[in-house]
Amino acid sequence: MRIIELVSEMQQLADQWRRQGKRIGFIPTMGFLHEGHLALMREAKNRADVVAVSVFVNPTQFGPNEDFERYPRDMQRDVRLCTDVGVDVIFAPSVPEMYPEGFQTGIEVSKVTIPLCGRSRPGHFVGVATVVTKLFNSVKPHLAIFGQKDYQQWVVIRRMVQDLNMDIEVVGHPTVREPDGLAMSSRNSYLSPDERQVALRLSRSLKAAQDLVDRGETGGEVILEKVRDILDSGGGLRIDYVQLCHPDTLEEAPRVDEPAVLLLAAFVGKTRLIDNCVLRPGK
Amino acid sequence: MRIIELVSEMQQLADQWRRQGKRIGFIPTMGFLHEGHLALMREAKNRADVVAVSVFVNPTQFGPNEDFERYPRDMQRDVRLCTDVGVDVIFAPSVPEMYPEGFQTGIEVSKVTIPLCGRSRPGHFVGVATVVTKLFNSVKPHLAIFGQKDYQQWVVIRRMVQDLNMDIEVVGHPTVREPDGLAMSSRNSYLSPDERQVALRLSRSLKAAQDLVDRGETGGEVILEKVRDILDSGGGLRIDYVQLCHPDTLEEAPRVDEPAVLLLAAFVGKTRLIDNCVLRPGK
Repeated sequence: MRIIELVSEMQQLADQWRRQGKRIGFIPTMGFLHEGHLALMREAKNRADVVAVSVFVNPTQFGPNEDFERYPRDMQRDVRLCTDVGVDVIFAPSVPEMYPEGFQTGIEVSKVTIPLCGRSRPGHFVGVATVVTKLFNSVKPHLAIFGQKDYQQWVVIRRMVQDLNMDIEVVGHPTVREPDGLAMSSRNSYLSPDERQVALRLSRSLKAAQDLVDRGETGGEVILEKVRDILDSGGGLRIDYVQLCHPDTLEEAPRVDEPAVLLLAAFVGKTRLIDNCVLRPGK
Repeated sequence: MRIIELVSEMQQLADQWRRQGKRIGFIPTMGFLHEGHLALMREAKNRADVVAVSVFVNPTQFGPNEDFERYPRDMQRDVRLCTDVGVDVIFAPSVPEMYPEGFQTGIEVSKVTIPLCGRSRPGHFVGVATVVTKLFNSVKPHLAIFGQKDYQQWVVIRRMVQDLNMDIEVVGHPTVREPDGLAMSSRNSYLSPDERQVALRLSRSLKAAQDLVDRGETGGEVILEKVRDILDSGGGLRIDYVQLCHPDTLEEAPRVDEPAVLLLAAFVGKTRLIDNCVLRPGK
């Protein structure tokens, strides 16, 4: 497995692969890889001839009071995990390689970035859309796979790819969970054992919502109330948002007559966690 | 010569060319082609194996009170001219093909779009950067050629290509002029014979500025004063801006000790014209 740090070198390898008729699969990550990332890589292995993984903790998608500095990093472990899965290249540029002096361009996807994390984290999705475009233009993939744990990000990227006519297939991979239900996230490493227990309320509340819908409930407010009750039971957790949205437009969904996505974000201690699930009526 | 109206079809042809190892040259235009465009096409013929020209009057780069509706169009003539030069494909998408319902993405290059036309035409360069990216992703060129008559646009595109790691060589082609000095522009067709004479003041004022510099003048204000005097002589012309800028950053240049670009925009009647020249000291 190669490790490439320069954009130009990554582009040369991508050109070489494309000339050889190889289909390039790509997974952008911020590293500190977990089973969720590995599932994406395995899917890329199945769907493409060669697989590139980027490891880049992107400063521009963090707010000034967020966790950029302390975001967990372990390149050695990431390299080992990628090697084991059979990844062909890790693209790991430095911050100055990605943002040299004079950098001044941003990509704004306007509507689907307004609610949810867009409201809580101003500028986050401009940072995400811009860095993903830079990574796409470096790796030149035919196919890119994103985890649906970051549901809004997945919607934003799909919208951007379509709007800008990027010739890339964007695939969403279902959220990978710990055995007890917690959605895999590099940020789970921040949690103390007690917080780890509190964090389980996120996935439990989503499960309770789907149970309600399975029993015929379609009223959005009833479902949201139930979710908030579970999240608020027992303290140690502060809700950032709980919302029911249209799966593609992310406009508020008042009812679950059609599939709707339930999205939530909450602080457990200082750690901000997100989770979501698509609720399907009559299931 | 082929005429392609669908993004997907253009991408397929581009992929085919790339598989054949052909170098793709690209010239984005709004059609109503003139000798300036043809010079760009001939340069592309020299530098690339195949040449694509887009003809698309992009609504998003026009302001609400600008000339989108009456912008001159003559597809039949454009096809003939491209055929004569030996262009391989005209990419001529419709507005709904480029901006289907739900479109919501914009690319903002922040600093170099602030002065000059950026100030006079709010939103113009977001429209330009976004459509050029969409055209790039459709045509997948190795090389794109822009006319330096639109100097600021050329700077914006170069900056965007660099910032987003687009693997495209951006070439600027010197402004092509009528025998009497008027910079070629599709908008010259708006001018009455009288206005056509008034419009000559633009290129004459640039020439006078270079003459001053050739005679050793380096003071920005002296040069700008001279330019404004010539533009204002005789009426029929309203200055939008006259500025002396750094050739790459477009920051204001107070002196011409180093090369500086003199840029101007003026209304002749209802027609807004732009022109520029790079002033080089000690020439």
